[in-house]
Amino acid sequence: MNPTVGDLEGNADLVVEWTRRAAEAGAHLVAFPEMVLTGYPVEDLALRTSFVEASQRTLERTARRLAAEGLGDLPVVVGYLDRRTAGQMRLGQPAGSPLNSLAWLHDGRVAARSAKHHLPNYGVFDEFRYFVRGDRLPVVRVAGVDVATVICEDLWQDGGPVSVTHAAGAGLLLVINGSPYERSKDDVRLELAARRAREAGCTLAYVNMVGGQDELVFDGDSMIVGPDGELLARAPRFAEDLLVADLSLPDAPSDPQPAEQPVKAGDGTTITVERTVLSARPVPPYEPVPPPVAPALDDLAEVYGALVLGVRDYVRKNGFRSVICGLSGGIDSALVATIAADAVGPDNVHVVLLPSRHSSGHSVSDAEELVKRQGLHARTVPINDMVEAFERELEPTGLAAENLQARVRAVVWMGLSNQDGHLVLTTGNKSELATGYSTLYGDSAGGYGPIKDVTKSMVWALSRWRNEQAVAAGQTPPIPQEIIDKPPSAELSPGQLDTDSLPEYDVLDALLDDYVERDLGRDALIAAGHDAGLVERVIRLVDGAEYKRRQYPPGPKITPKNFGRDRRLPITNRWREPSAG
Amino acid sequence: MNPTVGDLEGNADLVVEWTRRAAEAGAHLVAFPEMVLTGYPVEDLALRTSFVEASQRTLERTARRLAAEGLGDLPVVVGYLDRRTAGQMRLGQPAGSPLNSLAWLHDGRVAARSAKHHLPNYGVFDEFRYFVRGDRLPVVRVAGVDVATVICEDLWQDGGPVSVTHAAGAGLLLVINGSPYERSKDDVRLELAARRAREAGCTLAYVNMVGGQDELVFDGDSMIVGPDGELLARAPRFAEDLLVADLSLPDAPSDPQPAEQPVKAGDGTTITVERTVLSARPVPPYEPVPPPVAPALDDLAEVYGALVLGVRDYVRKNGFRSVICGLSGGIDSALVATIAADAVGPDNVHVVLLPSRHSSGHSVSDAEELVKRQGLHARTVPINDMVEAFERELEPTGLAAENLQARVRAVVWMGLSNQDGHLVLTTGNKSELATGYSTLYGDSAGGYGPIKDVTKSMVWALSRWRNEQAVAAGQTPPIPQEIIDKPPSAELSPGQLDTDSLPEYDVLDALLDDYVERDLGRDALIAAGHDAGLVERVIRLVDGAEYKRRQYPPGPKITPKNFGRDRRLPITNRWREPSAG
Repeated sequence: MNPTVGDLEGNADLVVEWTRRAAEAGAHLVAFPEMVLTGYPVEDLALRTSFVEASQRTLERTARRLAAEGLGDLPVVVGYLDRRTAGQMRLGQPAGSPLNSLAWLHDGRVAARSAKHHLPNYGVFDEFRYFVRGDRLPVVRVAGVDVATVICEDLWQDGGPVSVTHAAGAGLLLVINGSPYERSKDDVRLELAARRAREAGCTLAYVNMVGGQDELVFDGDSMIVGPDGELLARAPRFAEDLLVADLSLPDAPSDPQPAEQPVKAGDGTTITVERTVLSARPVPPYEPVPPPVAPALDDLAEVYGALVLGVRDYVRKNGFRSVICGLSGGIDSALVATIAADAVGPDNVHVVLLPSRHSSGHSVSDAEELVKRQGLHARTVPINDMVEAFERELEPTGLAAENLQARVRAVVWMGLSNQDGHLVLTTGNKSELATGYSTLYGDSAGGYGPIKDVTKSMVWALSRWRNEQAVAAGQTPPIPQEIIDKPPSAELSPGQLDTDSLPEYDVLDALLDDYVERDLGRDALIAAGHDAGLVERVIRLVDGAEYKRRQYPPGPKITPKNFGRDRRLPITNRWREPSAG
Repeated sequence: MNPTVGDLEGNADLVVEWTRRAAEAGAHLVAFPEMVLTGYPVEDLALRTSFVEASQRTLERTARRLAAEGLGDLPVVVGYLDRRTAGQMRLGQPAGSPLNSLAWLHDGRVAARSAKHHLPNYGVFDEFRYFVRGDRLPVVRVAGVDVATVICEDLWQDGGPVSVTHAAGAGLLLVINGSPYERSKDDVRLELAARRAREAGCTLAYVNMVGGQDELVFDGDSMIVGPDGELLARAPRFAEDLLVADLSLPDAPSDPQPAEQPVKAGDGTTITVERTVLSARPVPPYEPVPPPVAPALDDLAEVYGALVLGVRDYVRKNGFRSVICGLSGGIDSALVATIAADAVGPDNVHVVLLPSRHSSGHSVSDAEELVKRQGLHARTVPINDMVEAFERELEPTGLAAENLQARVRAVVWMGLSNQDGHLVLTTGNKSELATGYSTLYGDSAGGYGPIKDVTKSMVWALSRWRNEQAVAAGQTPPIPQEIIDKPPSAELSPGQLDTDSLPEYDVLDALLDDYVERDLGRDALIAAGHDAGLVERVIRLVDGAEYKRRQYPPGPKITPKNFGRDRRLPITNRWREPSAG
């Protein structure tokens, strides 16, 4: 399910709607993602009393509404924002003691609640700022099966509620998640789920969110694995879906068990197992239908899927209907326009061609060919007159002259955005962002950067992949081959090529990957086989571009370090890796 | 002392230099601030192995260098970055297990070490991302006095090493800090130090950093309080200083004590008291000199001091020598130019007057009068030709037309910055930033925003205060009175006034304070006496301006919520406080 942050009513509507569909499909238990009622992550909204109270009210109202609509029999597990009422305010504790919670809804009321125990505070996560930790494991008997429920990070870290699931004798471990996409994370998730299922000795159901939220893209990938770790069912990715699975689950023991039982949780804490019975009687035997197992996506397909969903949701959830971007005739803006057309439809994509005295003839004709193939709205605004008006006053030279052209273009597309209400898409790629090969308030200006986290090497790979998909489907390739084949140029000075200032992109991108993603220092980079001179130069470029990166628009995150929340150096920083000399 | 992040050698030089001065003043113990060798905060540099190792090497080298320069006898306490070697990597633990550490340097070697126990992870702090926690309290005998040492947040939170200081029988509690400035924080610090001194039953020395680091301004405010909480000595603020104090401290007990002793620390952890003897023999009696007690600053003086230091250090530490800003004739740019002149000297301040067809005659003449009074470099660049070049192509109306003028101005000053190497100062104030009353890539463009965290009401107050200071010193007031008196206007359309779009600033700023700083919801704001209609309108404005705020340059932080790391809402966010209807 694809909730929207802050849209409590809209999210509750979706919960009711999908519960109805699940009921129609004969489900005995329905589960929704982490914090589905509020959307996720809510950042500092978690610290606002009025927002926490609205979440609590929405939860109670949703329980009543499900019952009023005849769905009260069907237990529903949802994530929401709650707060701890006991305990005092302490310095360093989040204001109001918010909880990242889940609730079981049944018969018009909240039958059980618990809160996330392991709070991730790394990468894109800041949960020690926002939540206090939970210390309970609800085990809820549904149709005679004991179902334990935990939230996201509780599955990833050792100890805590998942570690007591086996001792609690659960027949199903249900995990609700808000787990953002990263390349190849689906493989890691499947392995993790299989391992935890074996540890818990029971079937494990993993329910993840779908949709874009600022930099994050939730990819779904919901799945069920058996007690032996075997994959039983899997939903498609990057799309909402009702995954229905008939499971053979063990009957709960019939001897009476304590309603509350504290258990050592292997991480220095104690988790209280809290038992609730909703229905003790097993479902009468019926013929199970084999559940669907969506095929895994290959690498480029999943990246492209993440970029399209990221753009679509950023546009839609921020109240825009159309986008605009500059189209230079180069590969970056070509790919961005193609992603945009796939995300919001070609009729909502407006491109502007902004030729200058340095633009080559093929740039304009290649851009026009792309526009024609995809059926975009295009407008040409020559920038020479505007550039000359500045030049008469400022007489810029060198980099200042190059930057001027880039900024004049940004003034044009920002103006068209303000006039016509389009969201500006920024067309820079990750290799540029890393090295600072862009103009502040020029090509880096806009509202969303679809390929902000995509290296130049991958820009080419995705462009080829997208064209191949079209060919395989009997369609015209959306991106003219000339755009893919030509050497990259910013066209800000006569005959300029990217390789005048930067190494070949395959060499650069491999080095960036080791420096940025793996945080290797100078010596380690050279030991890994990178050219020593290039290492020195690229480290200087990357470290010097921190300010520009902080001013860059958000864009869909596809790697562990997308230059968002997850890699943040001081701007004021004299550190340079010690050089060999 | 004012270290620079990443400048390990430069910071070590400063430690040696100030130690020499302390030795010359006859000191028996010298203390420097938290992480003084690396600068603070280092953000993701903490996660880079090569940086941690460089910090460790710098520490050892500094110890040897002090000895080589004849300063080995004098115990020196410094903060630095270390890492834990024992223990395994775990998911969610910072890579490499970095420690925010302190070391005692003596006789050319490291005599004792410990690491910060309480890691702040709120407001501007993210220390759960960067550090693992320490669990030791070093008690070092110097001249027969037992000195316990802890780091910053350890003083603020209950439990941990400070709570075992009394049981450890320390005669002096030494706290090294990197505690950023906030309005009136000096009062809170003094109360806290007094309370902890009474709890520990000993004298407490509080050593804080000075200097600007991106958004943070460390204000110094180093002080010493007696066991009864009485203020004994205090250094001036916003300036480096050697605070020398003769103290009467108790002799350590002569009976032998265990080298290591675990003590329950009142926060669920155990702290090991670790004893080291550097010198057991008391200093022979001498006539003490009463230490200086710098007077407290009044509110406007401390804010102005923070802004000037923030600008000076951002310019200097980022390798700039001069600044440029637009000068409109209004109060915001007038105050920014004045702060800049006080920070880097009038000869390094370049202003550009950018009159348009909507600029009034008095705007230009008032700006020229300010330039003359302060001796700034000024240049006039009329923008009509440039604006018209865009207008011919785009025919913008309404807000798009207003934004165009603001963006053309930004292109001019960014161009001059690129051409001449000046840092661009952005002149927007906090009231504008809160409500989104600014143009993205227009007036909000630049490298540093000196009054980003200053409300419009305080812009006036600071301008008056600065003029009064000049008058009191027999100088010409730097800001022409006309600029202070005239009604504020963006001058982007004919006869425009801020009050056309916004309420009077005293009303607006009071509401913003309750909504932003205190996080009150709609109902609570109305209950606090704010006009209901205005509350609805301002909430909409503030929540809708999140994207603009994220694109804003950094600026000196003077309040708990400066729209930096400390107040961060999702961009994609449908939450609106429920309205009364």
